[in-house]
Amino acid sequence: MNKNSVSNWLKSLQNEICEAFKKLDTKASFNESLWERTGGGGGITRIIQNGGIIEKGGVNFSEVYGTLSAEAIKSLSLLNYSVSQAEFYATGISIVIHPYNPFVPIIHMNLRYLELFPDSEKEKNKISWFGGGIDLTPAYINLEDAKFFHQSLKNICEKHNSSYYADFKKFADEYFFIPHRNETRGIGGIFFDRLTAAKNISLLNRFNFVQDLGKLFIPTYSQLITKNYKMPFEEKNKEFQLFRRGRYAEFNLIYDRGTKFGLETGGRAESILMSLPPTVKWHYDFIPNAGSNEEKTLNLLKKNIDWINF
Amino acid sequence: MNKNSVSNWLKSLQNEICEAFKKLDTKASFNESLWERTGGGGGITRIIQNGGIIEKGGVNFSEVYGTLSAEAIKSLSLLNYSVSQAEFYATGISIVIHPYNPFVPIIHMNLRYLELFPDSEKEKNKISWFGGGIDLTPAYINLEDAKFFHQSLKNICEKHNSSYYADFKKFADEYFFIPHRNETRGIGGIFFDRLTAAKNISLLNRFNFVQDLGKLFIPTYSQLITKNYKMPFEEKNKEFQLFRRGRYAEFNLIYDRGTKFGLETGGRAESILMSLPPTVKWHYDFIPNAGSNEEKTLNLLKKNIDWINF
Repeated sequence: MNKNSVSNWLKSLQNEICEAFKKLDTKASFNESLWERTGGGGGITRIIQNGGIIEKGGVNFSEVYGTLSAEAIKSLSLLNYSVSQAEFYATGISIVIHPYNPFVPIIHMNLRYLELFPDSEKEKNKISWFGGGIDLTPAYINLEDAKFFHQSLKNICEKHNSSYYADFKKFADEYFFIPHRNETRGIGGIFFDRLTAAKNISLLNRFNFVQDLGKLFIPTYSQLITKNYKMPFEEKNKEFQLFRRGRYAEFNLIYDRGTKFGLETGGRAESILMSLPPTVKWHYDFIPNAGSNEEKTLNLLKKNIDWINF
Repeated sequence: MNKNSVSNWLKSLQNEICEAFKKLDTKASFNESLWERTGGGGGITRIIQNGGIIEKGGVNFSEVYGTLSAEAIKSLSLLNYSVSQAEFYATGISIVIHPYNPFVPIIHMNLRYLELFPDSEKEKNKISWFGGGIDLTPAYINLEDAKFFHQSLKNICEKHNSSYYADFKKFADEYFFIPHRNETRGIGGIFFDRLTAAKNISLLNRFNFVQDLGKLFIPTYSQLITKNYKMPFEEKNKEFQLFRRGRYAEFNLIYDRGTKFGLETGGRAESILMSLPPTVKWHYDFIPNAGSNEEKTLNLLKKNIDWINF
């Protein structure tokens, strides 16, 4: 397993996912921007807009490399000892889809691979790992969909390691949390980082897991789309979606590590911020009606919910 | 001059400004929330919504006190030496107004007074200062309005100190800047911090300056409203306003120190985030037409523009 096999696979996954979205949403317009990074590498940003199903979304690939400063290594907690600088290589795919219908959930997936060379003994002492995850942010939580989504993730996890699902679900619950609202962003999913080679688990095993996850994306999300995108909705449902998107924007702009890292290291702002919703409303002090579906959803934005056996 | 005279004046300013807005925008609904802070103090949040002129705005007063941890003192850079903790008192008014018409600018004003007691010799060693400012964020920059706004600020500054306008305008240009967009938020204004008593300037002189600034708010902004709120506009003007509001939200959620401090210290999220626009759009990679008014505005979002002699 080498970095080229990972980046080639990620690029082919980007193609497959974009092709699938073209078939799912024939009205959407697709736009591609190629960008280069000062310092090494670049990316392929693909934006999907104004579709019948997808209001705005992005399927982004990037492959960047160069030198990280001591400061960047520290602020990213990449090493637990200090070095003056280190060469690095990172490749990944990032997807965020904001559907038009308030009953279709927002989905996010990120898969990434990193190599770090902390000293001059390049290949010998390199540190390599995989990170990423998939999570779902419904405007309205649908328990059947939540169960289906988590069960799909659990099935893939269990194919690889009996502790993956529990560990990575917990990580997602902790990560996709908005402290100032005391709310989770959505129903979570799985999230992992620093999957290095370990006892009995080779880096190739990790890559196989990441590949299975990538392959799961379209079948899982297309089922959620197909089931829900024709659901009739009222003005109040759309309003609630715009309100929930406000929370999504708050999370991404205040807390998301990837967004912060990208903006701080001079990444292309338009590619990084494609994750922001197309339209958002910030109502003052929205309080749902007692017993309403809006209230039910807000009461479910909590960590540690067992969606499979709810 | 004591803290009660400052907080009483700020409360009366809140009343005056709200009364003036009620007269200016007779269709708007006004809502008041009183809140208490765990640890000491609280505030009066007044929200203006769904008016004929104002789409959403807030005129907030707060008066908080208690103990700051060493960590909070450090992260706020309140002292240039370390202490294990310190008592504090802070009172202030924060105003953000998002008008409906894209030709009326967003305005922001903050006036605040802080007392810090770094050791047990309470009153003797206390450190006191004023901070704050006023700035304007037009969707479309109107050079005549920009000149009027800056000239009004300059006149007040010069009544008090010959260096205030130049120093505080520069501070505003540096502060209201969005690095990842390489854009200022708007046309700036004046911004200042740590106005302690100094040679030939008593704390009462500082307070007089802050009071003059507070009194300037309504006459200045009501002129900008009256001149522009009936200007006819097209769909594309409204779209551009929603786009420009996206930048406003990015600044407030990523960079604004007051927002960050408020959220991190457990302030009331709805009061702090009243500054967020009511409706926002994030278009992907918006590029204005050559020679358009949208392009003219984007080209003027730069630091160090002399708006008075443009």
